[in-house]
Amino acid sequence: MLVKSQPKALVFDVFGTCVDWRTSIAREGMEVGRKLGATGVDWLAFADAWRAQYQPQMETVRSGQRPWTTLDVLHREALDRVLPAFELGEMSEADRDALTRAWHRLDPWPDVVEGLIRLKSRYVIAPNSNGNIALLVNMAKRAGLPWDTILGAEIARAYKPRPEVYLVCAEALALAPSAVMMVAAHNGDLVAAAACGLQTAFVPRPTEHGPGQTSDLVPEREFDVVATDFIDLADQLGRVPIRS
Amino acid sequence: MLVKSQPKALVFDVFGTCVDWRTSIAREGMEVGRKLGATGVDWLAFADAWRAQYQPQMETVRSGQRPWTTLDVLHREALDRVLPAFELGEMSEADRDALTRAWHRLDPWPDVVEGLIRLKSRYVIAPNSNGNIALLVNMAKRAGLPWDTILGAEIARAYKPRPEVYLVCAEALALAPSAVMMVAAHNGDLVAAAACGLQTAFVPRPTEHGPGQTSDLVPEREFDVVATDFIDLADQLGRVPIRS
Repeated sequence: MLVKSQPKALVFDVFGTCVDWRTSIAREGMEVGRKLGATGVDWLAFADAWRAQYQPQMETVRSGQRPWTTLDVLHREALDRVLPAFELGEMSEADRDALTRAWHRLDPWPDVVEGLIRLKSRYVIAPNSNGNIALLVNMAKRAGLPWDTILGAEIARAYKPRPEVYLVCAEALALAPSAVMMVAAHNGDLVAAAACGLQTAFVPRPTEHGPGQTSDLVPEREFDVVATDFIDLADQLGRVPIRS
Repeated sequence: MLVKSQPKALVFDVFGTCVDWRTSIAREGMEVGRKLGATGVDWLAFADAWRAQYQPQMETVRSGQRPWTTLDVLHREALDRVLPAFELGEMSEADRDALTRAWHRLDPWPDVVEGLIRLKSRYVIAPNSNGNIALLVNMAKRAGLPWDTILGAEIARAYKPRPEVYLVCAEALALAPSAVMMVAAHNGDLVAAAACGLQTAFVPRPTEHGPGQTSDLVPEREFDVVATDFIDLADQLGRVPIRS
């Protein structure tokens, strides 16, 4: 493993890297469906359809087509677009608002809490996510994610992979970009982070999109660390001699 | 005790309310002085003089006289202004930078960590401080302050008591201002928070400015809670029935 120098802070992608959004959203949808008497809905397909709106929606903000808008708002708008394709019955505005908050209740992958607790003893740890602060705070409290603070899109008022999102993480921590390591399950996120001077750790999540996943199974560039999960990441970083 | 309705989040003033900046800065100054061979310096007077720059400096930002500037930068500039009055000998730029980071190493009052741990089990807790994110993250890691996230001046790019600082706390947590309680040892901070619709808790720190302190010894308005320390605050809030 090649680490240029020991980082001082680790910042993490969240959706997919820390939490399993797909099965969590399916579970939350199923609960709502039960209350509404909806049967025969493919809840994993519902989760995929909802998530499929994510990149095109953020692109409208990245491109300047619309001003800064939080992910809670984008999720709520996406739900309205996705619902007609699923036989969920009539959903009130309040029901839609409540279901949108399902994104605050995503479950972490099994290694995440233990790995983060270990990493926190040595590094500043923070999400660098496109999720908004409220979403990430509520998720962390429910799931036990021991962040030192919340960083990411809402602080920068821009969405990854825009460079300012990575750079504002370093700036907020008063660190050089090279003293910050971006941890993600997505090659594109790490390539963008590396272009801003951050260190990079790839932790694949081969079932993020289900058993047939074809993307982000392997590192497509040379990253500073490649780890099987967050416990392996803590093990590998624990072995790096500290050079300050 | 009169609480309008149970808050969802508590936001805290830090300098004075959570941490004893005066004796901590005196201790840090003394260590630097020992290395430099400085004797006969009144370190508490040094701490007071450094802190005395704080409000006038922030006023230059609040008034628009200068653009947004973090407290780390203001502390560094203030040090240059204060040093000539104390016989500290020659200090290099690097020594001055290092001493400025003393503000990242302030000790909490003895009740703070236990009180925050208890409050965190029931509420979102975050600093709403004029300190910058890096300062507050580093302080929290050293002192064991278990914040859910860091809020405050750097998020709002404005200094308390400007209303946007209080309002951005609520906005970032996706809460109504009335669902957020400001906790502070300073009447002025709470009056400003109440004007923005936040709930208020006064926790006096009668030795913040030393044994002869004359200000902020008692609540000067009717606040929602008055507590002797953070443990008393957790006790009192624990007794409030939750009305949602």
